[in-house]
Amino acid sequence: MQAPPDPSRLGQAATFGLRSYLALAPRFRAGEVTPSAFLDACLSAIERLDPTIGAFVQIASASARRSADASTERWRRGEPLSPVDGMPIAVKDIIETIDMPTGQGSPLWDGSATRRDSASVHALREAGAIILGKVTTTEFASSATRTPGGSSSGSAAAVGAGMVPAALGTQVVGSILRPASFCGCVGFKPSVGAINRSGSYDHFSQSCQGVLAATLADAWAVARAIADRAGGDPGYVGLTGTADLAGRVRPTRLAVLETGGWGSTTDGARQAFAAASVRLAEAGVELRGRADDPEIEQLERQVADALTITRHINVWEGRWPLNTYADLDASKLSASARERLANAEKLTQADYRAALVQRNAARAAFAEVMERYDAAVTLAAIGAAPVGIRSTGNPIMNVAASLLGTPALALPVLADQGLPLGLQLIGAADGDAALFEVAAGVLEVVLARSDLIGLPAD
Amino acid sequence: MQAPPDPSRLGQAATFGLRSYLALAPRFRAGEVTPSAFLDACLSAIERLDPTIGAFVQIASASARRSADASTERWRRGEPLSPVDGMPIAVKDIIETIDMPTGQGSPLWDGSATRRDSASVHALREAGAIILGKVTTTEFASSATRTPGGSSSGSAAAVGAGMVPAALGTQVVGSILRPASFCGCVGFKPSVGAINRSGSYDHFSQSCQGVLAATLADAWAVARAIADRAGGDPGYVGLTGTADLAGRVRPTRLAVLETGGWGSTTDGARQAFAAASVRLAEAGVELRGRADDPEIEQLERQVADALTITRHINVWEGRWPLNTYADLDASKLSASARERLANAEKLTQADYRAALVQRNAARAAFAEVMERYDAAVTLAAIGAAPVGIRSTGNPIMNVAASLLGTPALALPVLADQGLPLGLQLIGAADGDAALFEVAAGVLEVVLARSDLIGLPAD
Repeated sequence: MQAPPDPSRLGQAATFGLRSYLALAPRFRAGEVTPSAFLDACLSAIERLDPTIGAFVQIASASARRSADASTERWRRGEPLSPVDGMPIAVKDIIETIDMPTGQGSPLWDGSATRRDSASVHALREAGAIILGKVTTTEFASSATRTPGGSSSGSAAAVGAGMVPAALGTQVVGSILRPASFCGCVGFKPSVGAINRSGSYDHFSQSCQGVLAATLADAWAVARAIADRAGGDPGYVGLTGTADLAGRVRPTRLAVLETGGWGSTTDGARQAFAAASVRLAEAGVELRGRADDPEIEQLERQVADALTITRHINVWEGRWPLNTYADLDASKLSASARERLANAEKLTQADYRAALVQRNAARAAFAEVMERYDAAVTLAAIGAAPVGIRSTGNPIMNVAASLLGTPALALPVLADQGLPLGLQLIGAADGDAALFEVAAGVLEVVLARSDLIGLPAD
Repeated sequence: MQAPPDPSRLGQAATFGLRSYLALAPRFRAGEVTPSAFLDACLSAIERLDPTIGAFVQIASASARRSADASTERWRRGEPLSPVDGMPIAVKDIIETIDMPTGQGSPLWDGSATRRDSASVHALREAGAIILGKVTTTEFASSATRTPGGSSSGSAAAVGAGMVPAALGTQVVGSILRPASFCGCVGFKPSVGAINRSGSYDHFSQSCQGVLAATLADAWAVARAIADRAGGDPGYVGLTGTADLAGRVRPTRLAVLETGGWGSTTDGARQAFAAASVRLAEAGVELRGRADDPEIEQLERQVADALTITRHINVWEGRWPLNTYADLDASKLSASARERLANAEKLTQADYRAALVQRNAARAAFAEVMERYDAAVTLAAIGAAPVGIRSTGNPIMNVAASLLGTPALALPVLADQGLPLGLQLIGAADGDAALFEVAAGVLEVVLARSDLIGLPAD
């Protein structure tokens, strides 16, 4: 019999001051609060906090104010364009915006204006959302620099600190879920192809554009607003489902995954996970792991090397554009980028083919397991954000879902060293909507804090 | 019993002055001709012909001369970097080049410098090839303007007139094979994903980057030089096979396809096709069509509406970036582009899903047929280039292969009205190398002109 859960492991300290937009929808409708006032609150928070945090690289205050006033008028008339009408959103600085440069965290691209919005940014503007600013990323969204939780560093910090309710990020290894876990917000990496990433410097085959948000409802509404207007990547239908988060579903059975990262987790992280597991078990959710199910054991073997396989794939796929950037000015590439390019030049098409074969095998194994489980559950990071700012932290707990191409959520419900830590849920490929409903059910069980779900009824 | 073929239908008049590079490889090796002298001949041809033809929008003569001299030195030492070392290549102006602007045939993008090479251009430079210039395209490589055979208009004209041995083009409907057919050169659209198109303004799901060339051997060498160094699109292994065209294979059995376009073909085109069919039959190749094989009949039904399905897919996928370009300056979009955008705004994700379902069904039907045939054969255009320059001609004969995502070749071996007309071969998905070998076998049978194969032994 397990010990009762230690409440200090479960999230009371795990968020800093999240600011939901969707939760205010009834008050916007009633005219008690306006999108203009909401924007002012965000701008105040930025003024107060960002000099220390440094999330934003550009802020479009004037156009944001104009957009917020127009949104206020639409809500007043009872005709918002979508659930995210008036929502201020921050955009990772590898995603193109017509009114702000796209710097890619690189001196090579500093101030580079691309004269267009990305598909996702344009869709959000169509939906009435406010593109408030660009947030910092590590160089080309990949190499390690001095920000805790890369590469969607600024996106997670801006949301986690309550400066905006949501931000766009991207993940090819662990760049949405890990910073979301460190910064105590919801992180959503969709199924491969589910959100159109055209107009983003983000061309890896397992990369996704996703959302970091204050609540599940905010994350879902942003993702759906994009997919409804811009679809998925070309060739993919894109995320489908209702415009608002549909509801909550208490799972019957969850697959507990260790992935290649479990051995690296901290004691505190494992204790927090155990506490959440107890809550789930008490609520009647069956948790089964590699010792209970030979198919899970088989899957664990397939994803144990997910980081190595992913790195092979990314190094080959990242040969371009690093090679042409090196031609432009190699001195402006980081040592890490130059090293990746040198490694890329050693790989062959045959190496790449072998890595794709491994990835496909892992995807098939996961699909098989998911026929009998509502979702898989694991940690979203090996522990709290590491001390110091010399590394972006270990992505080992995130890379499995990236390799698998499946939807994944980080839920800010655990704590390690009194700091935020995410519980990770992984759904079946293209089962994004179902994963959100299960996540809402899990949130309800693990924490009494339904504010993190953010359904209007909460 | 069929009448003997009319020789006037078979290609003697069907090319204007193609200039192969691969055919000279033995002479480069022997030092009898140098890449520098070859480049001079290309530049002379451009100077003589392009004022009338108008294929080039940019020519990088000075850097081309430096690259040719370096290549000459490598061949002198017996150490060429690849079969295309020193080959001058023209690049469709939607593909990025670090040293030349990328205008996309639009006043919105006129003179726009993107500060990088596309993956394919960079790979060709690595292989020693010379990026000689940018060639004209219709607006955003899609809408109809005043060039015969769009949208890889300049690519086909430059190769067909012997100004360069090869050019990069792109096809999403019929933009490589149709201009190749009109201009009397080899056109190669690879399998979807087989050539990395990163760094090209070319994001449709069935779009491909391909090659227009003087011979099969030139086309293959260019394609393989790219794929060997840059692979396929992210997530695709990319074109594989030997660096040089491997050989010729006389097919045993070919599937004759009408597709949705046969009813639009000219009398002359059908007579030319019949003449080629007679030659193939005389050589013992079995030709079977919809009347002979119920699976072909089934396939014909699936691809009869290929143009409609493709347009639905492209309109949805083309919503972005047209919407953000319209925000930038709608007055600089053509009427056709504005109309496509208006149509896009009427489509929904559900419409797009339905079109993808139809495309997948057609692909499955083709795969089934191709289990029993060496390739499919049809016309590459409905006839010779239309009189006048008000339309780019009808792409109806090309769209089936585009929808199917399969490799396709236009071979300049037919004639209509004394003008070039292509014979089209379509291979199984990812069977690009096998298709080239079958094409060499077909060329040998249909014409005595083995110079169009271009194998060193010819």
